[in-house]
Amino acid sequence: MKIAGVPYRSIWVDEEDGWSVRIFDQTRLPWAVETLRLTDEEQVAQAIRSMQTRGAPLIGATAAYGLALALRRDPSTENLERVAAMLGETRPTAINLRWALERMLEALRNQPPERRAEAAYAEAKAICDDDVETNRRIGEHGLELLRGIAARKQAEGRGGEPVNVLTHCNAGWIATVDYGTALSPIYQAFDEGMKVHVWVDETRPRNQGAALTAWELGAHGVPHTVVSDNAGGHLMQHGQVDIVIVGTDRVTRNGDVANKIGTYLKALAAKDNGVPFWVALPHSTYDPRVADGVREIPIEERSAAEVTDITGRAPDGSLVTVRVAAEGSDAANPAFDVTPARLVTGLITERGRCDASAEGLAGLYPEHG
Amino acid sequence: MKIAGVPYRSIWVDEEDGWSVRIFDQTRLPWAVETLRLTDEEQVAQAIRSMQTRGAPLIGATAAYGLALALRRDPSTENLERVAAMLGETRPTAINLRWALERMLEALRNQPPERRAEAAYAEAKAICDDDVETNRRIGEHGLELLRGIAARKQAEGRGGEPVNVLTHCNAGWIATVDYGTALSPIYQAFDEGMKVHVWVDETRPRNQGAALTAWELGAHGVPHTVVSDNAGGHLMQHGQVDIVIVGTDRVTRNGDVANKIGTYLKALAAKDNGVPFWVALPHSTYDPRVADGVREIPIEERSAAEVTDITGRAPDGSLVTVRVAAEGSDAANPAFDVTPARLVTGLITERGRCDASAEGLAGLYPEHG
Repeated sequence: MKIAGVPYRSIWVDEEDGWSVRIFDQTRLPWAVETLRLTDEEQVAQAIRSMQTRGAPLIGATAAYGLALALRRDPSTENLERVAAMLGETRPTAINLRWALERMLEALRNQPPERRAEAAYAEAKAICDDDVETNRRIGEHGLELLRGIAARKQAEGRGGEPVNVLTHCNAGWIATVDYGTALSPIYQAFDEGMKVHVWVDETRPRNQGAALTAWELGAHGVPHTVVSDNAGGHLMQHGQVDIVIVGTDRVTRNGDVANKIGTYLKALAAKDNGVPFWVALPHSTYDPRVADGVREIPIEERSAAEVTDITGRAPDGSLVTVRVAAEGSDAANPAFDVTPARLVTGLITERGRCDASAEGLAGLYPEHG
Repeated sequence: MKIAGVPYRSIWVDEEDGWSVRIFDQTRLPWAVETLRLTDEEQVAQAIRSMQTRGAPLIGATAAYGLALALRRDPSTENLERVAAMLGETRPTAINLRWALERMLEALRNQPPERRAEAAYAEAKAICDDDVETNRRIGEHGLELLRGIAARKQAEGRGGEPVNVLTHCNAGWIATVDYGTALSPIYQAFDEGMKVHVWVDETRPRNQGAALTAWELGAHGVPHTVVSDNAGGHLMQHGQVDIVIVGTDRVTRNGDVANKIGTYLKALAAKDNGVPFWVALPHSTYDPRVADGVREIPIEERSAAEVTDITGRAPDGSLVTVRVAAEGSDAANPAFDVTPARLVTGLITERGRCDASAEGLAGLYPEHG
């Protein structure tokens, strides 16, 4: 997508040296658009852990390039396996990380060492290109839902109202290589002239909604309003949300959905108010090896400081980290929760939409049957 | 309750001059314990609007003293009615404000003007004393619930675990004149030696949980952990919450509960996970004139800046307000939501516990029948 009219992807190989990897430092957004240059696997691992790069699809792509950087210096099988294992440990919840590393290993294990680096760059690029095309298609399948809502409002004489979408966290273009997952239908709706408005959950504790989704949507010109994570239920009770669309870090064989902490609460509110709750995912987020999401998906516990302290822009323009919790109080920080499939209206994938169920997923992805 | 070992109420008449009113400036907590001296009704109104004083029971008590201050200078009937109307407009959702003003008007209208100021101080003091005793009793009735949970855990061989209570916003002693409503049972449990632990919802956007509840509990020594508002559902899914207790700004005849924005989401999660969800209220929060909370209770819309900006303590010790939302993004800020009675396990009042229903409330408060 575009920043100030210039099209970008969220990860690319440096054009000057032809081998280092560039990403946006997402801990600096929305305050500064800065790129980081990654030159080895340790830098890649640290960028993933610190969430300088983030978003389930994007951390998969970034880890793939991490392997390419590692093999450039040491293409041995031992190094390949070691670095893949190390990168696989950087974050536990999003399955895309493991998916990308397994795809890389499959493509590289049988290559002779002298060809591995080149093959790794090619495979990482293929993963990125696939992600872009996948997300574009997710957008098309989600767009049909938004068109349906717009048509219904029109028929009800409410054609002047926008289609109101609520989203949680950031599943936009900077959470992927391009287009985004949950935001892809919204961008496509906006681009075709539909009147659309997005309720952006702030998404504490890291504020990916207020900081990243609001920035993305604003940069593209999409009307939106930031709300505290607490507000969504109230908005739904009062008919101000037509549809919820979120991304996901892992969808199980049964259709359970891991996503940013708080997603489950919005799914409960959607169910209670008859608001459709859709989850957008690329094939790389589907984990058929896991059935019961609440019991089986590992939930990352991040540092208490993410809850007790927050960084923002001070009046003098500097970035300042302030403590917002009482001194001496500790905090817990589970980073994800799991929304049971029974609360999910359906899944939006690159192959179309389906029920959040074993049958629905098997219908779209029979190869995992 | 105590601050550094010294007992306080949250509002009192200045001991030196015998007429001005002292409150804590709650916008400075937890960073600084500072009192404000209020000398006229305009200062009182501004302190309520700006939330320097807050909490449904406490704003009622503060408004009562606001009338006393006004009558001290002009005890006419016209001034009495004018100031009561003005103070009644300061905040729309909590019914305690109207309750306190109506009680004051009833006590003062038939007094001759020359006796009104004295009578107003006496009635305001009575409102405060009643609030303290009311909240002490709420604590006793809530304590029985906590004892029941402790006994059950003991019987299940989990006696080493604390009783885990989740609360939202601040319904502690500084939201009332003393003791608190939702926190009153917790203080009493802790004081009798029960092993109790509180999950403190941060409570965006004004962070009353992380800033005020955590501060209160910490000052009293009660074990607690701050969590983002998004985390409660996940904690309940994993058996980490034994009971939810919240305060309220208004309970309708049918048992619907207005409380800080986000309360509804926690009630949904509690219902979904079989966790008891209790609401603590003094009689002054019961509004029998309203039936359907979602449709009838006015929800205050506060400024967008409360969402887009946040104040905290910078590393140099100064208080700094930082912007946390992307530049150019607007925000909406509904300050309360309504939890339908069907999601409420029961109400804890000074007269005992009851179902959140017209029958339950009529049983405890037959005088409103």
